[in-house]
Amino acid sequence: MSAVDWIAADWGTSHLRVWGLKGDRVLHHAASDQGMGRLTRDGFEPALLTLVAKWLSDTQVTPVIVCGMVGSRQGWVEAPYRGVPCTPLGGPLAQAPCRDLRLSVHVIPGLKQAKPADVIRGEETQVAGFLTQNPGWDGVLCLPGTHSKWVHVSAGEVVSFQTFLTGEMFALLSEASVLRHSVAGWAEGGFAEGVAQGMERPERLLARLFSIRAEGLLQGRDPAEARARLSGLLIGAELAAAKPYWLGQQVAIIGAEPLAQHYAQALGTLSVPVTTHDATAMTLAGLAAACALLPQSERPCVN
Amino acid sequence: MSAVDWIAADWGTSHLRVWGLKGDRVLHHAASDQGMGRLTRDGFEPALLTLVAKWLSDTQVTPVIVCGMVGSRQGWVEAPYRGVPCTPLGGPLAQAPCRDLRLSVHVIPGLKQAKPADVIRGEETQVAGFLTQNPGWDGVLCLPGTHSKWVHVSAGEVVSFQTFLTGEMFALLSEASVLRHSVAGWAEGGFAEGVAQGMERPERLLARLFSIRAEGLLQGRDPAEARARLSGLLIGAELAAAKPYWLGQQVAIIGAEPLAQHYAQALGTLSVPVTTHDATAMTLAGLAAACALLPQSERPCVN
Repeated sequence: MSAVDWIAADWGTSHLRVWGLKGDRVLHHAASDQGMGRLTRDGFEPALLTLVAKWLSDTQVTPVIVCGMVGSRQGWVEAPYRGVPCTPLGGPLAQAPCRDLRLSVHVIPGLKQAKPADVIRGEETQVAGFLTQNPGWDGVLCLPGTHSKWVHVSAGEVVSFQTFLTGEMFALLSEASVLRHSVAGWAEGGFAEGVAQGMERPERLLARLFSIRAEGLLQGRDPAEARARLSGLLIGAELAAAKPYWLGQQVAIIGAEPLAQHYAQALGTLSVPVTTHDATAMTLAGLAAACALLPQSERPCVN
Repeated sequence: MSAVDWIAADWGTSHLRVWGLKGDRVLHHAASDQGMGRLTRDGFEPALLTLVAKWLSDTQVTPVIVCGMVGSRQGWVEAPYRGVPCTPLGGPLAQAPCRDLRLSVHVIPGLKQAKPADVIRGEETQVAGFLTQNPGWDGVLCLPGTHSKWVHVSAGEVVSFQTFLTGEMFALLSEASVLRHSVAGWAEGGFAEGVAQGMERPERLLARLFSIRAEGLLQGRDPAEARARLSGLLIGAELAAAKPYWLGQQVAIIGAEPLAQHYAQALGTLSVPVTTHDATAMTLAGLAAACALLPQSERPCVN
């Protein structure tokens, strides 16, 4: 197993993903379900070592650059939020306490916005990665997920952002609510119908949701159509509320498939010009950009 | 233990409540958590007998009148929905299969509406109870709960109704979502603020929800205020969508405290004339009205 220059890590609430790199070339990749949510403070270093120990050299310190919820107050080390407007990366990274002398772990701070109150942890790194690959880009980034983020970027800075609970709501409703009896699978037609209804009358969301159950009971509606419609209703309502973000803007979607395509399709019906970008690639590019910001003495020793 | 003329039962997804009556006088009351959701078909009779066996006479058949989810396809016996417009009670009750000869169990059908698709099971009995006590009443009934119902009543009939997922959404968000870290207790000020925001911009619901989390993190906002605000946001959004129901109408709220008072307070800010009525009392009155509809041979034998 060849030793790496540095390690990139995306450490969220439910998952840990790591990459071992030489320069910008990925040599190794590993992942586990040891997310921040299931670890106590002294559990982080062992969870990391389980995945990366075999990539480390015994004769040099390997920097590890980390983004995500691992930098929250309940995480490994708190990396205090930086206030917008600001560049997506900047300020000192937070150094996590390590016993293993081969590791030097640096955590990227999230961003905060005073009004309306909002926070980001993890997506700032994807924004930075996107700007590295698209220098000078001005517009709006849409990062769908458990908590969808809309981010207005101008002159290399995050100007403002807004978080929507859309993904978490979809998971709760489709898995834990009365609607779970009526939804399963995915059928495109339902999604388009849901988006149109959610966009047109977003204020009727709480009533439309129950109609998914009632249509299942009374009309024997296809559960695959119903599940796609549920997703469409929520995304449509999000788009209606996010209108100040996308109206008259170019929108770059950073996300995983198939969710990124669903958002692209929904925005397409509004004639918004859209490009899509792979979330993992943007995360890696952002972590590399953060690595380059380390003080000279801390930077990876490129062999 | 004195024998009863008849037994009233409210059998929902999560609970069973029974009353033993002589005429309209309640002699006994009992309850258990043996809701429809945790029983298979042959579990219903034993669950009922556990609570009521000691009220039964060995020398006569005691009628049991039941409302709620026990009449759904997954319940004890299916009591097919009746289509609106129609009186809240009517048609034959569904007879549940019993081995114990002392029991004769009759289940009240729910109501269905074709467009928009919607269903009711249980609340039709409260509506019937309310109309028994307020004959000739025309207007709108609001029945807050896990699934809030708005019911338009005219000339003794249910004309139309609409279900909102408000209560279930509140439970999921406050107990199972990321917001659970930021909400606990209840502080009035937060409720009024939430109602105003939910009413004014219901389409921003998915974004406002996350702001509850962000305000907790950034501003250390009081969790009691945050929880009341969450409830207010959802109820405000419901009221905005239910406007065609309450606008220019008198509204009677049928619910349990403190929820009924919260709805009364929210409707009060809209200058809607409101009365509140105890849900259990309406259920009992409705079950009594259903009992009176039984064929002569089935009616309780009043000693």
